[in-house]
Amino acid sequence: MIKHYCNISQILSLKKAHEKDGRNLLPEDLSIIENASLVFNDDEILWTGRTADLPAEYLKEERVDLTGHCLTPEIVDSHTHLIFGGDRALEYSMRLNGADYEEIAKAGGGILNSMTGTNSMEKHELLSIGRERIERLASYGVGTIEIKSGYGLNFDKEYEVTQIINELKAEFKGRVQILNTYMAAHAIPKSFESSDQYLSEVVIPLLEKLATENIVDAVDIFHEEGYFNTEDVKKLFSKCKQLQIPFKSHADEFNDNKGAKLAANEGALSTDHLLQTTSDGISALASSDTVATLLPGTGYFLGKPQANARNFLDAGVKVSIASDYNPGSCHWDNVLQIAAITAPNLKFNQTEIWSAITLNAAHALGLKSQGAIIPGLAPRFSVFKVPTVHHITYHWGRNFFISI
Amino acid sequence: MIKHYCNISQILSLKKAHEKDGRNLLPEDLSIIENASLVFNDDEILWTGRTADLPAEYLKEERVDLTGHCLTPEIVDSHTHLIFGGDRALEYSMRLNGADYEEIAKAGGGILNSMTGTNSMEKHELLSIGRERIERLASYGVGTIEIKSGYGLNFDKEYEVTQIINELKAEFKGRVQILNTYMAAHAIPKSFESSDQYLSEVVIPLLEKLATENIVDAVDIFHEEGYFNTEDVKKLFSKCKQLQIPFKSHADEFNDNKGAKLAANEGALSTDHLLQTTSDGISALASSDTVATLLPGTGYFLGKPQANARNFLDAGVKVSIASDYNPGSCHWDNVLQIAAITAPNLKFNQTEIWSAITLNAAHALGLKSQGAIIPGLAPRFSVFKVPTVHHITYHWGRNFFISI
Repeated sequence: MIKHYCNISQILSLKKAHEKDGRNLLPEDLSIIENASLVFNDDEILWTGRTADLPAEYLKEERVDLTGHCLTPEIVDSHTHLIFGGDRALEYSMRLNGADYEEIAKAGGGILNSMTGTNSMEKHELLSIGRERIERLASYGVGTIEIKSGYGLNFDKEYEVTQIINELKAEFKGRVQILNTYMAAHAIPKSFESSDQYLSEVVIPLLEKLATENIVDAVDIFHEEGYFNTEDVKKLFSKCKQLQIPFKSHADEFNDNKGAKLAANEGALSTDHLLQTTSDGISALASSDTVATLLPGTGYFLGKPQANARNFLDAGVKVSIASDYNPGSCHWDNVLQIAAITAPNLKFNQTEIWSAITLNAAHALGLKSQGAIIPGLAPRFSVFKVPTVHHITYHWGRNFFISI
Repeated sequence: MIKHYCNISQILSLKKAHEKDGRNLLPEDLSIIENASLVFNDDEILWTGRTADLPAEYLKEERVDLTGHCLTPEIVDSHTHLIFGGDRALEYSMRLNGADYEEIAKAGGGILNSMTGTNSMEKHELLSIGRERIERLASYGVGTIEIKSGYGLNFDKEYEVTQIINELKAEFKGRVQILNTYMAAHAIPKSFESSDQYLSEVVIPLLEKLATENIVDAVDIFHEEGYFNTEDVKKLFSKCKQLQIPFKSHADEFNDNKGAKLAANEGALSTDHLLQTTSDGISALASSDTVATLLPGTGYFLGKPQANARNFLDAGVKVSIASDYNPGSCHWDNVLQIAAITAPNLKFNQTEIWSAITLNAAHALGLKSQGAIIPGLAPRFSVFKVPTVHHITYHWGRNFFISI
């Protein structure tokens, strides 16, 4: 069925940003259309432009009057860990009060806390928690959500969590688009002697099983000292290529392990965090299709320095921002709010910040058919009750999204 | 009538913080009471402690079961400019896109925009806007709100705005406590040749008139190069002392004008912003009762450096945090959310951050009978639907406040 949204105050179309493949974006690449209309069917956008210029053939279609509203490409959160049991509120307070890593671990904190919390929950409980969290993100205007496994950390629970994400994906189909990322390689459980042992005995065998079920959209790995090393990452990426499953990495968060460079050279969808990435990594990203996903919410939540976003933006890298929503290092689930506070502080212009949570975030998930409001792309957009698109990121802490 | 709230999961009482007058606060000065009860009447808190220890005399009182909730001293926003007409969303976008002060002024931006926007609104419109904004702050759990005039910038409109705040104060009485701060000395309108001329012809004559009506709770002035100089500030403070009206200042935001030092030495209630304040100002504050009010929302909103909070905290200064909610430099109205993000980034411990938006914020308004949950103080508190007080600042971007 063809639908027609008319009298939209402004459409933030990102037409030029899309033409520039999300790189080297200027303020005018927002490509705002005033007093606009949008015509679309279930599969694609058919027409957009000023309502006054609407082709006569669409005048007969069902119309929804969106006077006083603005429309943007759909908000995408391309990096979340939202399936976890328990919480880490006390650990957070302890850290504010000066506790170090060891004291927190002694008090039962850290990722092992979330592993225990997740493993102690039954499937129906984790499904219910996941459902509630997806609903909450959707209420902010997030229409596409990537969800990683990674708090099971054993064969059976990682399998179960991946199934849970798959079930949620089916349940939300048509309303929220869910991407299922397998990340058993999130940390190394204490019962394993080495990262390689865990990779060989759990991560890869389970991936092979999941590949036969065809429910994994991408594979992720924590490439960092004390977690998985460069050899591990290469081994996993190689397996992904063999299985024809896209892959990505958490890289260069604590140290410059050349993780971003490796990801770009290997053809990863995205590489994420990138606080320590140096110029060779940035160059490799700029000449690749790999998206650099920054997670500034994590920097704020931990009170730590941020990635130098301008170095990536100025080099022509495709930059995305995601929430990293998780119980330990970023218990903040609203990527639009994170982007709003990031813009003036990490020096994004308006086109860069909007692309980071729409167009480039979609590309970070391999979704090339969305991210701009232009004919031929998928009809994926978010609608806000504001007079201009500038108002969306101007009033911090408020939510103007409306579900139509 | 006596009321009894029972089975409160945790009360964050700030008992020890109150005993220490809000200075040199340690994590344990939060003074959490588990499985608590609170007994109070309209005027004061009568008893608080563990429900198991409740004196028999209170068992007969009307009880409200608050299982699964926590209670804190009332959230106070001690610095807002929430009566303004128009907005500055486009200016905000222009700044993100690299426009400088001059370009923004040329496009009609800056404080003059808000002056025009405010003057073009009739009294009933400004009342309606103010009402809506107060309701929104109240929905976050803010129970006491300071509101400044300062966008009228002429005798008649400043008079009207002060009356508006007074009417809102009466309207919200019993639910939200409003403090009326007269700040005609917010900027110097272009029609005046000097700050002294504006001060002598508008600010002080109107203050004298308002003093006879007894509707002003405090007087504020923008002590900064290009605005009001040290002589102006001394002159206004002196007039306030003569009229027995408390006073405060915006100081040391752009330059170290020794504004904090002056405010402390003159006995101001608070002095606010303080990005450039040096050790002499901090020493003066530490040995005074003047509260140092930091406005980190403004730093984030403008993408600028923040005040060095630890210098103030470590010197034993009473530190408060407020929103600075205004259309230009901080369009962010949720002081609890601002405090949550400030804690790890400006290195506040939990007691310091909670005191900053309760006890010390109340003191910044001269309200010495609230800010902690102890017998004898006013029954002013906020209730949140969370299992522990740690959860309130742990989940960023969410609102757990409930109105009982």
